[in-house]
Amino acid sequence: MGISPAESGSPEKEQQAAGVGILLQIMMLVLSFVLGHVLRRHKFYYLPEASASLLIGLIVGGLANISNTETSIRAWFNFHEEFFFLFLLPPIIFQSGFSLSAKPFFSNFGAIVTFAILGTFIASVVTGVLVYLGGRMYLMYGLPFVECLMFGALISATDPVTVLSIFRELGTDTSLYALVFGESVLNDAMAISLYRTMSIVRKHASSAQNFFMVIFRFLETFVGSMSAGVGVGFVSALLFKYAGLDVDNLQNLECCLFVLFPYFSYMLAEGLGLSGIVSILFTAIVMKHYSYSNLSENSQQFVSDFFHLISSLAETFTFIYMGFDIAMEKHSWSHLGFIFFSILFIVVARAANVFSCAYLVNLVRPVHRQIPLKHQKALWYSGLRGAMAFALALQSVHDLPEGRGQIIFTATTAIVVLSVLLIGGSTGTMLEALHVVGDSHDGHLGESFDVNNGYVAPSFKEDGTSGTGIKMKLKEFHKRTSSFTALDRNYLTPFFTSQNEDDEEEEEALLDERISGSERGGFLGQ
Amino acid sequence: MGISPAESGSPEKEQQAAGVGILLQIMMLVLSFVLGHVLRRHKFYYLPEASASLLIGLIVGGLANISNTETSIRAWFNFHEEFFFLFLLPPIIFQSGFSLSAKPFFSNFGAIVTFAILGTFIASVVTGVLVYLGGRMYLMYGLPFVECLMFGALISATDPVTVLSIFRELGTDTSLYALVFGESVLNDAMAISLYRTMSIVRKHASSAQNFFMVIFRFLETFVGSMSAGVGVGFVSALLFKYAGLDVDNLQNLECCLFVLFPYFSYMLAEGLGLSGIVSILFTAIVMKHYSYSNLSENSQQFVSDFFHLISSLAETFTFIYMGFDIAMEKHSWSHLGFIFFSILFIVVARAANVFSCAYLVNLVRPVHRQIPLKHQKALWYSGLRGAMAFALALQSVHDLPEGRGQIIFTATTAIVVLSVLLIGGSTGTMLEALHVVGDSHDGHLGESFDVNNGYVAPSFKEDGTSGTGIKMKLKEFHKRTSSFTALDRNYLTPFFTSQNEDDEEEEEALLDERISGSERGGFLGQ
Repeated sequence: MGISPAESGSPEKEQQAAGVGILLQIMMLVLSFVLGHVLRRHKFYYLPEASASLLIGLIVGGLANISNTETSIRAWFNFHEEFFFLFLLPPIIFQSGFSLSAKPFFSNFGAIVTFAILGTFIASVVTGVLVYLGGRMYLMYGLPFVECLMFGALISATDPVTVLSIFRELGTDTSLYALVFGESVLNDAMAISLYRTMSIVRKHASSAQNFFMVIFRFLETFVGSMSAGVGVGFVSALLFKYAGLDVDNLQNLECCLFVLFPYFSYMLAEGLGLSGIVSILFTAIVMKHYSYSNLSENSQQFVSDFFHLISSLAETFTFIYMGFDIAMEKHSWSHLGFIFFSILFIVVARAANVFSCAYLVNLVRPVHRQIPLKHQKALWYSGLRGAMAFALALQSVHDLPEGRGQIIFTATTAIVVLSVLLIGGSTGTMLEALHVVGDSHDGHLGESFDVNNGYVAPSFKEDGTSGTGIKMKLKEFHKRTSSFTALDRNYLTPFFTSQNEDDEEEEEALLDERISGSERGGFLGQ
Repeated sequence: MGISPAESGSPEKEQQAAGVGILLQIMMLVLSFVLGHVLRRHKFYYLPEASASLLIGLIVGGLANISNTETSIRAWFNFHEEFFFLFLLPPIIFQSGFSLSAKPFFSNFGAIVTFAILGTFIASVVTGVLVYLGGRMYLMYGLPFVECLMFGALISATDPVTVLSIFRELGTDTSLYALVFGESVLNDAMAISLYRTMSIVRKHASSAQNFFMVIFRFLETFVGSMSAGVGVGFVSALLFKYAGLDVDNLQNLECCLFVLFPYFSYMLAEGLGLSGIVSILFTAIVMKHYSYSNLSENSQQFVSDFFHLISSLAETFTFIYMGFDIAMEKHSWSHLGFIFFSILFIVVARAANVFSCAYLVNLVRPVHRQIPLKHQKALWYSGLRGAMAFALALQSVHDLPEGRGQIIFTATTAIVVLSVLLIGGSTGTMLEALHVVGDSHDGHLGESFDVNNGYVAPSFKEDGTSGTGIKMKLKEFHKRTSSFTALDRNYLTPFFTSQNEDDEEEEEALLDERISGSERGGFLGQ
């Protein structure tokens, strides 16, 4: 690293080190983009962009590790959980919500919530108990029970980043995508809540009502975050409707404000002790649905491109950063047994999560909307662990004494690398083997929903012959759906969006289309 | 600040504090944008957007200071020089270069360099000597001579941020704008170099050849940074010419790469111990001239909007941040005499800089290209001190022992606030009183150059009657100009930009226009 001889004073030196560090990071970013582009052009799906970025980070980190780099430069590459949570995660999650058409998400809402809440709880507990038993049977290093549950919680956070980038790349059934996406986004909130709760339990060693506390805390976090997110979204819609900023020469002001709102929502939730991820996700959905149409045409084009750009950069950077830090951190490899058995246990726990929850969901769903076994298998297979588990594990190094956090961190690191490289590389093959690759190879999964409606969007009128219990439920959903649609059409859309007289008819046509779509798919139905 | 009760573990608490801090910052940003918009719409020029942002920061900081805020939240608002130099400054400077048409900058290049190098040197030395003498005469706190020079150097950095935002807002003569802009950008590099050099001198107490060392160091920094910047710009031009990314579905990749290059240039220069500011400025000019035309049409529109957006955010945030930190930091107000006399001395030093350099420039320039006295006065008046001086002063707190850094910091703070509020608020009145408000009230100063050519762009053929020495010089410049134009036309533009056959004629026409323009104005002439 050809930097000039060190200058006077530590601030300049530090700044220079930062410069070199950032320089290296930019070079890795450019390399990742170029490599990803080349791989995609040659349709080489065994090394998706995410894996390529991770590998680049690993390799450069390894090189930096064996060379004698100054510690001040090394310090600039450490994975700061803070940086990840505050600056990298928000754009990624926002873009997920912003690019997602609301329909497939809401039409699978019940299933998604089941997988995210109940499923993640099952997975965490199963992993925790198995790791504890493994420790008691001397198969692996024995952790205290609460710490096993902490490990179970953090390792149950399947990563939206990884999953999204790979699924989007490959193109798959829209409903399956919605399930995997929705679950991985929401289960982060669950995993974080569980981890924090277990961390409190560990410190205060109170007992008994923990189970209900966990559930209460999660619900509090989830409902609170959702309200905050939806609220901020509505405020933004009203601002852009009434501020009269959709004039040509105010485009910059308009875009500045539009860009600040999602971040505001994220930080509001974090500041209130809620989950910023859930909040920004709902803000994204509301802003796309209402605020977006109040922008001038140029600004609409710009903000779409802007969020796409920012999230691509953040996504790629996250993988590089993670790879680099994995190569740089000190690891305690003396507990290979722990790693081996953890992998075994999380595979079992993931199966317990997916298949039991799918069973429950299928109990309630009508026959034609059942989640087929191949989708369940795909869902089981796609439980990659990524940056979220990594960040929580890094936190556990500070939280747990006597090197036990270090063991958890090393195990998590190994699981993350293996799952990204192995599952990431084989997801294409798996999806093809299970015949769940959708018609939508163009990468715009959310928007192709109407074409590729699979088992999600049947007409409710056709299933007059199913059992009465299910029928009742269905009717209830249908009613709720139509009432929400009516609410949206008659009150929300006119209230939050600006319908100029000249494009009112167009709007009408769009609304009609939307309604017919939601009558088929059910806007808030399960 | 209604945050929920503190949770377990310091990382979560820290993250929450960060959340609240960032939330407050976003709210101030939104407020600044809205307030700035309202003020602009009502043509209230006594409080430009920059001053409004500074005031908002000051007020909120003052409120936070008297209320009992947690220290962890306060920590998030401290002005980190690192953050400023690494993340806020690059987009601002890049946008300056990117939005500036190269012509007025290069046609005043000689004058700009004279003001920036010689002028800043004069101003620093005059300020330093006066402050030293003031100390010896017990008018103010007596600093050692070298530290006086350090103060002189850091306080001589006129701020491109402040100056640009106010001048752009008000609209003025293009040549004057180019002088003020060019000087304030380049003199930062000089001030930083001088400050660093004096800092080394202070530590090692070597003597004698310091004067030449300063000059050598500045030239090294300047030429090196310029080469790095131009080099990176050319590489980017070649990449976008040959990579074939201007296809529709690769727009995102194209924009990602385009956005990474300027930052790469900045960090490359910083990593090499050079000035990132100068480097990114030249990268911006080269990228606008060559790389930009190799982009697809959509990407061109997008990157322009993108850089505009990012720099607006960074600019506004810088002022808020500065105001907030000024209100929060501990200041030693016991040395009011120091502040009063420093202000007096820098006014004198600025006059010594501007009028002596203008005299020198006018000696070489032909009669019709003389810098008129009213422009000299405007230039003298517009020496605002802003974020750069503030950041260097903050650094001096670490560099200087026994509270002397603290005195310098407090004085600089007072000077920054006063100059931004007073000069910023009265610049409009001043420009009107001097009759130098240009025709270009639309805010696009650089682009209106051909309309408003003032004294910059006379035809060289007409002045066959001036003195022979000047005539020789002029001819030399003219020759250089035409050779550079020919080089640009015959080699650089065809080499670095992609001329498709269908738009070659258009390109030709554009080139012809450019050449006739530079024959009038002189592309590299003084």
